[in-house]
Amino acid sequence: MGLIVQKYGGTSVGTVERIFRVADRIVENKEAGHDMVIVVSAMGKSTDVLVDMAKQISPYPSEREMDMLLATGEQVSIALLSMALHQRGYDAISLTGWQAGVVTESIHGRARIKEIQTERIQRELARGRVVIVAGFQGVSDEGEITTLGRGGSDTSAVALAAGLNAERCEIFTDVAGVFTADPRVVPAAQKLDSISYDEMLELANLGAGVLHPRSVEAAKKYQVRLVVRSSFTTEEGTYVEEVPQMETGRVVSGVAHDEDVAKVTVVGMPARVGTLSRLFHTLADNQVNVDIIIQSSYDADVTNISFTVAGSDLHKALDTLAANQSELGFAKVDHEEGLTKVSIVGAGMVNNPGVAAEMFRVLAEQEITIKMVSTSDIKVSCVIPAALTELAVRSLHTAYGLDASTEAIVHSI
Amino acid sequence: MGLIVQKYGGTSVGTVERIFRVADRIVENKEAGHDMVIVVSAMGKSTDVLVDMAKQISPYPSEREMDMLLATGEQVSIALLSMALHQRGYDAISLTGWQAGVVTESIHGRARIKEIQTERIQRELARGRVVIVAGFQGVSDEGEITTLGRGGSDTSAVALAAGLNAERCEIFTDVAGVFTADPRVVPAAQKLDSISYDEMLELANLGAGVLHPRSVEAAKKYQVRLVVRSSFTTEEGTYVEEVPQMETGRVVSGVAHDEDVAKVTVVGMPARVGTLSRLFHTLADNQVNVDIIIQSSYDADVTNISFTVAGSDLHKALDTLAANQSELGFAKVDHEEGLTKVSIVGAGMVNNPGVAAEMFRVLAEQEITIKMVSTSDIKVSCVIPAALTELAVRSLHTAYGLDASTEAIVHSI
Repeated sequence: MGLIVQKYGGTSVGTVERIFRVADRIVENKEAGHDMVIVVSAMGKSTDVLVDMAKQISPYPSEREMDMLLATGEQVSIALLSMALHQRGYDAISLTGWQAGVVTESIHGRARIKEIQTERIQRELARGRVVIVAGFQGVSDEGEITTLGRGGSDTSAVALAAGLNAERCEIFTDVAGVFTADPRVVPAAQKLDSISYDEMLELANLGAGVLHPRSVEAAKKYQVRLVVRSSFTTEEGTYVEEVPQMETGRVVSGVAHDEDVAKVTVVGMPARVGTLSRLFHTLADNQVNVDIIIQSSYDADVTNISFTVAGSDLHKALDTLAANQSELGFAKVDHEEGLTKVSIVGAGMVNNPGVAAEMFRVLAEQEITIKMVSTSDIKVSCVIPAALTELAVRSLHTAYGLDASTEAIVHSI
Repeated sequence: MGLIVQKYGGTSVGTVERIFRVADRIVENKEAGHDMVIVVSAMGKSTDVLVDMAKQISPYPSEREMDMLLATGEQVSIALLSMALHQRGYDAISLTGWQAGVVTESIHGRARIKEIQTERIQRELARGRVVIVAGFQGVSDEGEITTLGRGGSDTSAVALAAGLNAERCEIFTDVAGVFTADPRVVPAAQKLDSISYDEMLELANLGAGVLHPRSVEAAKKYQVRLVVRSSFTTEEGTYVEEVPQMETGRVVSGVAHDEDVAKVTVVGMPARVGTLSRLFHTLADNQVNVDIIIQSSYDADVTNISFTVAGSDLHKALDTLAANQSELGFAKVDHEEGLTKVSIVGAGMVNNPGVAAEMFRVLAEQEITIKMVSTSDIKVSCVIPAALTELAVRSLHTAYGLDASTEAIVHSI
């Protein structure tokens, strides 16, 4: 029986009762003979409370001091979970990021893990203890407390699993696994038994939200076998691992969608070298995150550039463009709100050239206008009117044979 | 201008407004040219909240995990105070106990400081920064987070002042300094400008409550100049330092009282070698803290032993005695509740042999029955009925010339 790393999010340890439920699950695995390393997030909304306190003191608090402040959240939950295991009669010890040897870059608020120095954890495991590690935090070479930013605890768990050569890394969350589509939108969505890292990466990036892309990247890099599963049921979750393509037989593994998309079109940019670079550097300098980018030229001298941003970033994008119009030299800016990005993801489409065309056909059949298209090796994304999101996702889900009770219509193209 | 260490308690940093008030006071000192090291406790009642959470999980949580949990309280306040100083335009950095080099014994819940490794603090001071250190906590040689127990933050401040050779160590609290008596009981009580370590130790032990005895002991040992002052006014506080006795001319520096005292008398103990040892070991093994002890023999073979305990410990004391009666061999136990210990404290009494007699005279004049007496070089304590506390304390305060507006009646005996 090997070592298992389990990660429990803030919801899973949000109350005393839930902490005991987590303890009981750990005990089951321990009794089954596994060595256990547990990564925990801060309880429920406690991080939000800390952020609020800081904001009352300073609108732009120092990132270094924010890390000092926020790291306390996980320190509280590891201590309480350790006490709960003691209460159940099991030996356990909590370790902060620095005690657990989670060494990061010397950057605050979004540090990357450089190394796991596993001596202390190994020593505690050798004593038969359950080791409970504070997620989301680490320590720099200078002895500063750092935090990993969004998705940090997932990343902590994957890094520990890699550093300790764990049998697998189980990410406990409030959903039962990775689904072929958002079950709130597609009632027929099915839980996947397994999915490849690359597919999971696309789904994570596409707003499926179960796992943070950073943790999936790390899992892929170090070939950590990830399991996504519910902390509220005993149901088997979804394995994220290197799945031999041949075996799945699937062309498309899932349909993802990302609402609240806005499209901006910069009309009449001078078509010179460096135009794109200048435009997107200006946007990046102003913290506008751009997703899909499309350039279309209708003239040798002039070009139009369309891109999408999150709806919440639209005004910042428009303000930035307005402020830099003379410098960038474009004629005008159009924009459109209320859009959704719908994507099909599947490692199988690499060898199936007609997948994008089939997607367009399904959407056209439902009379859904496609505003923009973006593709990669394993995904095709279409930007469509938000009002048609449900129709689009369900139609694609059915068409690619992902519905729980139907056969594939376009199983192999 | 030298280095000043300041310590602010939980009440002083209990709200955002108060944190800014503390920041402003630090800024004043910084502007006056001082290097500043600040020790902070956990905000307001936050430690109580953490203790409550732990108790919900386990009636007897592991001390090691309690330290892990409780240490977060100070970590929150140092981060917020540092942010407040940044907001005021000053460079500041917060350090946890382990970052500040506060090395303690490997004991949890009540560790003693072994050493302050000052390199990191010195480096930050050299960069012109205000250094904010988490009080109450340290780190053991094994890299474990420890806490110092009651009065821990005061002790942290004194230890840092000693390690850094600070000009002085200012303890900010909710009173203006050390008084000749409790101002709530004696309206004419005066704030002392200075007091010796030994006098302060007696007062601290006698329930004056301004400073924890441990911190005064440490200050005496390392000759740290302590100042006790209010965090809500700019009033000068009380200096605790080696005061040459000749200069003060005072026989008595203050009148302390400790309410909620109970007296227990063990009647008819066999007067054999080891009787006292067995009796008080039995009590200590059952966590009964004993204060004054008096032995009186009325017979060569049998002795009576009286001692005082806190009222809250009385039942534990009586239960312990009852459970061990046959082993200890005494005849019966009497007890009396509702008592107060009144004490006069003053380094000047060493050379004034009649001080105790004078105290008995003052109390007798008020027809106050003295139940027990205990003396040391610099204090005399009498146990009296609690109902007469106010009368006793005021009479003694007046008699020893401590009233704000009167002359001493017994200035030199």
